[in-house]
Amino acid sequence: MSDLQFSGAVLTIDLDAIRANWRRLRDRLGATGCAAVVKADAYGLGVERVAPALADAGCRVFFVAHLDEGVQLRKLLPGAEIHVLNGLLPGSASEFAAHKLVPVLNSLGNIDEWREFGRKGGDAPRADLHIDTGMARLGLPPSEVQILRESPDRLEGMKLRYLMSHLACADEPDHELNQRQLNGLRAAQAWLPALPVSFANSSGIFLGPDYHLDLARPGIALYGGNPTPGQPNPMEQAVRLQGKILQLRDVDTPQTVGYGATHRVAGRGRIATIAVGYADGYLRSLSNAGSGYLGDKRAPVVGRVSMDLITLDVTAIPRKQCAPGNLVDLIGPLNPIDSVAAEAGTIGYEILTSLGSRYRRVYRGGAD
Amino acid sequence: MSDLQFSGAVLTIDLDAIRANWRRLRDRLGATGCAAVVKADAYGLGVERVAPALADAGCRVFFVAHLDEGVQLRKLLPGAEIHVLNGLLPGSASEFAAHKLVPVLNSLGNIDEWREFGRKGGDAPRADLHIDTGMARLGLPPSEVQILRESPDRLEGMKLRYLMSHLACADEPDHELNQRQLNGLRAAQAWLPALPVSFANSSGIFLGPDYHLDLARPGIALYGGNPTPGQPNPMEQAVRLQGKILQLRDVDTPQTVGYGATHRVAGRGRIATIAVGYADGYLRSLSNAGSGYLGDKRAPVVGRVSMDLITLDVTAIPRKQCAPGNLVDLIGPLNPIDSVAAEAGTIGYEILTSLGSRYRRVYRGGAD
Repeated sequence: MSDLQFSGAVLTIDLDAIRANWRRLRDRLGATGCAAVVKADAYGLGVERVAPALADAGCRVFFVAHLDEGVQLRKLLPGAEIHVLNGLLPGSASEFAAHKLVPVLNSLGNIDEWREFGRKGGDAPRADLHIDTGMARLGLPPSEVQILRESPDRLEGMKLRYLMSHLACADEPDHELNQRQLNGLRAAQAWLPALPVSFANSSGIFLGPDYHLDLARPGIALYGGNPTPGQPNPMEQAVRLQGKILQLRDVDTPQTVGYGATHRVAGRGRIATIAVGYADGYLRSLSNAGSGYLGDKRAPVVGRVSMDLITLDVTAIPRKQCAPGNLVDLIGPLNPIDSVAAEAGTIGYEILTSLGSRYRRVYRGGAD
Repeated sequence: MSDLQFSGAVLTIDLDAIRANWRRLRDRLGATGCAAVVKADAYGLGVERVAPALADAGCRVFFVAHLDEGVQLRKLLPGAEIHVLNGLLPGSASEFAAHKLVPVLNSLGNIDEWREFGRKGGDAPRADLHIDTGMARLGLPPSEVQILRESPDRLEGMKLRYLMSHLACADEPDHELNQRQLNGLRAAQAWLPALPVSFANSSGIFLGPDYHLDLARPGIALYGGNPTPGQPNPMEQAVRLQGKILQLRDVDTPQTVGYGATHRVAGRGRIATIAVGYADGYLRSLSNAGSGYLGDKRAPVVGRVSMDLITLDVTAIPRKQCAPGNLVDLIGPLNPIDSVAAEAGTIGYEILTSLGSRYRRVYRGGAD
């Protein structure tokens, strides 16, 4: 929105890191194809910059959630293969065809509608067939898979692209549901038309080659989230959020800080007020829990996160580092998205998709 | 973004309710002026529509957080009085003057910079003087107030608009900090130049006439949040969020739902998948906690909130009400923002400011 001088925070998005992450996953996948999930505005990082950078790195297949997102992405990448995970809404088939978007068929209703569209002469692109193996969210449930098996003519004449399913617990390698889902997928594969199969999300790629199949579709790992929780993060960080110090305050008598008076400064101390709040996606659950870093020194969030402001205890940090106008890392080398998420009681995905619109956004790198 | 047919959710914003809320507060305030806080894109509801509607209802004084927001609002309301709460950033004085924005002076540094700007011939508008009486966030701390008292020449020649302070616990009428903050403000008032005083936020208006002073600046109450928690809400709801059913799923064997398999359907049941997730601001903390309503029937959120989807248990709801394409109230008459907030473990403010950009937004009412 404004220039750097007057914005309350700077969000730096490293397109080169995102490209490097995609290539790293592609290399790990070997013969398996590597798509990219860019739904939700590329996990909050800006699809208009992220998608072309990924295409430039070699990515040809993209996944979004909504039809709208597919239409937007089609304008950015005229030649890409674009899949829409949320699938058909009643009456939307012609929109998919007009923009050459691949709908994910999630139900018998979807299948029937898509087939009917093709029959009536609609120039239908290929579609994905999504069977549910354990999410109970989207995809054909076992009962509908059974019906489909008994009436294969429902698929007659349809051009299909991928058979797909989605992992529920891929970030827990020892969870018994992983193998069960893989078994379910293979059982369906056995009787369905010979289709390539897409299964693994970011964490699924790290469950081993059994889970790779024909096409993986990573999302969070591209953007620096750790696909192997509890182990070192194999991905590069792609995001840095620096909040600006608005005011530095010496406290010399005991007093409370912020709404609800939830934090008490008992003795002498120093509080820095930063121009970032929950309206910027700095989640309110980081109240009395989050961390800022000035260089390598941690300054804890004290008091509640306000709509437009947070307060940090900078008592232990030299005064000159805390001058108004200076920047504090709210997401950075020492507090990457997964750490911030842990402090907020959520996951890195939500930290990313919550990133606000009032930041000054700076992109690094991109095309070669 | 798209038309209603293909969007995953509809967000309806009732401008008439917002106008009615403002007038209700104005009437309650009597001789005290009633401003409107429209920071953070009017609490997520769209400042481009909300601010003109409030101006049309009679509001003349507006508060934003950031300089950028002030510049944007000035374009919308050329004649309004616009205050910027986060105050001066170093070097920004001329920007304030250029757009006739009233900076809130939060520190001696701010005061000195503003005075210097005026001295050098800058055509400075009036400024507010903000003293901190118990937030420890923005505003002059007691030590700086003392310095100012001993060197009143620092204010010499400055045109000031309001003396202001901000309540920390106004939503808890019995909190002892309220009276203490009022006392602190009055003590400052006694020796400062004869300035009108602005103190009360939404809840502050309901602490009684002592807290009204010259100008109140409500925010959340305008948008339907309850300024009197624990008591009936005196304000009208202004927001309705309706998510679209993508898929209806019969579960006839025991199985788990969603990421991490956190919810188990033990017997027969029915799950509806809705095209709204945490990337739309439906907070992930609503996992296994939130509520949808189909008419007057509650359908609990089961499983984790996904990025683009939630799943509701609709077993108790007639099947025909749950057809794909039907709408479910995620914020509505039976689950207003404060109820959703309670389920999410946060406050209504964060529910509003998190409202996402993928909704189809529909505005009702507006100018007379």
